[in-house]
Amino acid sequence: MKIAFIGMGTMGTGMALNILKAGYALTVHNRTRERETPVVEQGAKAAVSPMEAAADADLVITCVSDTPDVEAVILGEKGAMHGARPGTIVVDMSTISPAVTRTIAAALAKKEIHMLDAPVSGGSEGAQLGTLAIMAGGDEAIFQRALPVLETMGKTITLLGPIGAGQITKAINQTILAATYLGVAEGMVLGMKAGLDAKQVAQAIGGGAAGSWVLDNRSGNMVDNTYPLGFRVRLHHKDLKIALEAGRELGVALPSTALVDQMETGLIGRGFGDEDVSAIARTIRELSGIK
Amino acid sequence: MKIAFIGMGTMGTGMALNILKAGYALTVHNRTRERETPVVEQGAKAAVSPMEAAADADLVITCVSDTPDVEAVILGEKGAMHGARPGTIVVDMSTISPAVTRTIAAALAKKEIHMLDAPVSGGSEGAQLGTLAIMAGGDEAIFQRALPVLETMGKTITLLGPIGAGQITKAINQTILAATYLGVAEGMVLGMKAGLDAKQVAQAIGGGAAGSWVLDNRSGNMVDNTYPLGFRVRLHHKDLKIALEAGRELGVALPSTALVDQMETGLIGRGFGDEDVSAIARTIRELSGIK
Repeated sequence: MKIAFIGMGTMGTGMALNILKAGYALTVHNRTRERETPVVEQGAKAAVSPMEAAADADLVITCVSDTPDVEAVILGEKGAMHGARPGTIVVDMSTISPAVTRTIAAALAKKEIHMLDAPVSGGSEGAQLGTLAIMAGGDEAIFQRALPVLETMGKTITLLGPIGAGQITKAINQTILAATYLGVAEGMVLGMKAGLDAKQVAQAIGGGAAGSWVLDNRSGNMVDNTYPLGFRVRLHHKDLKIALEAGRELGVALPSTALVDQMETGLIGRGFGDEDVSAIARTIRELSGIK
Repeated sequence: MKIAFIGMGTMGTGMALNILKAGYALTVHNRTRERETPVVEQGAKAAVSPMEAAADADLVITCVSDTPDVEAVILGEKGAMHGARPGTIVVDMSTISPAVTRTIAAALAKKEIHMLDAPVSGGSEGAQLGTLAIMAGGDEAIFQRALPVLETMGKTITLLGPIGAGQITKAINQTILAATYLGVAEGMVLGMKAGLDAKQVAQAIGGGAAGSWVLDNRSGNMVDNTYPLGFRVRLHHKDLKIALEAGRELGVALPSTALVDQMETGLIGRGFGDEDVSAIARTIRELSGIK
């Protein structure tokens, strides 16, 4: 099985290297061509466009920043759709709109090209180590064909429903994260203003019902008021837009998601968009008069 | 060391039985006297009032419902304060106001009676099994004297600061829980309205950054729309009042806590106050048109 991989960002580079390590023939493309180099040095071919990358591929993976980028690399002028043969599988591993995902899949289906959506979580570390959680949507038979390749990149790989289901699941993940970050931030600031050692508080309650990955791994940032990456506010904010749009389409009220979305809008406006999502604590700290 | 235990509710009964099992001499009292029976049958003495229970005790534990109840059983007419000798330690294991806790401690100090606050989490199951998390505030030396008794009831026992620090920590715990429940509810409803198997979604994302005790243990209730106890909405709502009052005193803005507090006010008004806290999903379900 020959593979094309479009998008050599922090995530895509790690994922592509794991595909190479598993012994697959790989062709890569990135808009900024220099970013192809690390993967080409490990044995991948480079292509001048998504179209050319897809020409010889059985499976085309896209992992780019946002909904318009996915539209461009798949449906655009030199998009993968124009190079791919009927029967090819396109797996979009970006985090984008579920509705647009279904539109793209419909356009591909007209050319007998299959599509899966398969956004990930687990960050750049998970991409490098091949331990991503992969949340997939699409036909079961197509998923099974792609699964051995997905297994080179991820640990927990779940097919959650038809095309778009992976993106909805990712949106749910980001929604739950939003509220959890906010709650932990409120708790840590309450502890600090009460004069407690808030890190000790996090430890004392972390084993019980208030326990979460965020409390274990990010409450320390909030106390120290330093927010090393991690996962950028800017990207989480993009994902909350997707979640809120999905909620709007489906008629789902998402009050805490909307609240965090607004706080992140403020953070980005103030120049904190490239900090870790735990920077939501800046908002609670400053609302509460802690520098 | 002789112990008195005031408050034979679901929590207190389990906790008192564990103290008995460890071999301590125990005297118990409960406002509704019949509730003393299960512990008396296991070898405890019964007392007609908190004052009488405290008369012969080295350590007096209170575990009652709310701030005024603690004031009554310690400072009230037949309160423990009037029976206790100088040097006695009062350990309040109820969840109440940190500010009132400090007031009670000051009143006790005038009679040379020491006080610790030591609210718990872990529910009735933790009370029975002796695996509670105990969050304590008070003097280190007094804490060390009480510790062997606390160890018969709890697993994670942490001294977090001076008197009131345990109550603040419990308030932080309830604050973080509030947001986590709300976020998980929003996520589950988004999944359901998108036509996904929301329990499968919870499983797919539970190992990652969105993971929490609530997602692992309570998201199923939200999907099934059944809310067996667990921990009552009514009690969590009481605890959020304490957290919001502490926030108000300390100047800490708690937006998601306030949002959940309002939702719980609505739930209680509609007759759902004795359901598990995961019933917050009722609000999101109904705002989103799911029966």
